[in-house]
Amino acid sequence: MLTKSSSLMRLVGELKKLPGVGERTALRLAFHLLKSPGNLTALSEALVDVKEKVRACSTCFAITENDPCAICSGNRDAAAVCVVENSQDLMSLERSNAWHGVYHVLEGAISPLSGIGPSSIRIAELLARVEAGGVSEVVIATNFTVEGEATALYLTKVLKPTGVKVTRLAHGIPLGSDIEFVDAATVQWALQGRNEL
Amino acid sequence: MLTKSSSLMRLVGELKKLPGVGERTALRLAFHLLKSPGNLTALSEALVDVKEKVRACSTCFAITENDPCAICSGNRDAAAVCVVENSQDLMSLERSNAWHGVYHVLEGAISPLSGIGPSSIRIAELLARVEAGGVSEVVIATNFTVEGEATALYLTKVLKPTGVKVTRLAHGIPLGSDIEFVDAATVQWALQGRNEL
Repeated sequence: MLTKSSSLMRLVGELKKLPGVGERTALRLAFHLLKSPGNLTALSEALVDVKEKVRACSTCFAITENDPCAICSGNRDAAAVCVVENSQDLMSLERSNAWHGVYHVLEGAISPLSGIGPSSIRIAELLARVEAGGVSEVVIATNFTVEGEATALYLTKVLKPTGVKVTRLAHGIPLGSDIEFVDAATVQWALQGRNEL
Repeated sequence: MLTKSSSLMRLVGELKKLPGVGERTALRLAFHLLKSPGNLTALSEALVDVKEKVRACSTCFAITENDPCAICSGNRDAAAVCVVENSQDLMSLERSNAWHGVYHVLEGAISPLSGIGPSSIRIAELLARVEAGGVSEVVIATNFTVEGEATALYLTKVLKPTGVKVTRLAHGIPLGSDIEFVDAATVQWALQGRNEL
């Protein structure tokens, strides 16, 4: 019988640390892996691989295997910098195929309640990039949450004096949504930002 | 930017193979692990550990780290053998604290539709254990599903001629459910109310 100290229980314990995984799910995943030793080995190797290879790009701080990352070293418009909170947001923007500039990953957002101030995230590095010259526009693509908006406000304040053009992702009604069910604030933004057809 | 061939995408691919984990969840888990390198290493090590250490007990075929397992080598009534489909079911029975005998893990159930016959699961090994003597009762604790019931029926047929007492878990467990997910109290009632077949 497996005791609490056994390797399987240790694996269950590690799986339980993952977001959204409880005791039952962890046990189910562990037994699933136990039944397919190939997958178990592959997962273990993939984890080691990620730990060894994945790092942050020294220019934009996006996660990458090669430094500078494929975007920074690629054929992109380095004069336009899109500022995002994390690499997941970067991936979402990349999926849209609508951005041809480069990025800057803040690795967080200003959140005084959580003790995250401007110095805790990579704002100084962004300022240094802008002050080094060659950047004509900074698009702020932080989330439309309290923290994201606070970060956008702070960024505008510190970037404006450098003379760079600072823009923000448009507010509006998401594609495919019913105006009836869109919140009032979003409708207000959509009306204020209406475009001529 | 991360390309499809990168180690992170490989990890996402491996995580997607887990039951109930889709593309989005896999990406979320991968980023979670990336942010906590300690957990990443621990999970990877736990996986390797499980692969190296966990095996089947040569007596009862339960998963174990030491052969014979703690139940087979422990202070348990070796004359009473509880037959289960898999180690998860065994763990559920152990959680009920109502069984003081030993186990026999079939590693499956008879399922003609899936091509699993009596010879595909560990029935011969159970018969050998019974025929070797020293077993006075076999409690059939296969699931109350079509496959589990068919297995119970087959086991009764082959075990009866050996003269051993054959019993079945009581119908306190709702028909069609999996023993792995039944609460401990119900399992306890089912053990106490076992009937001779």
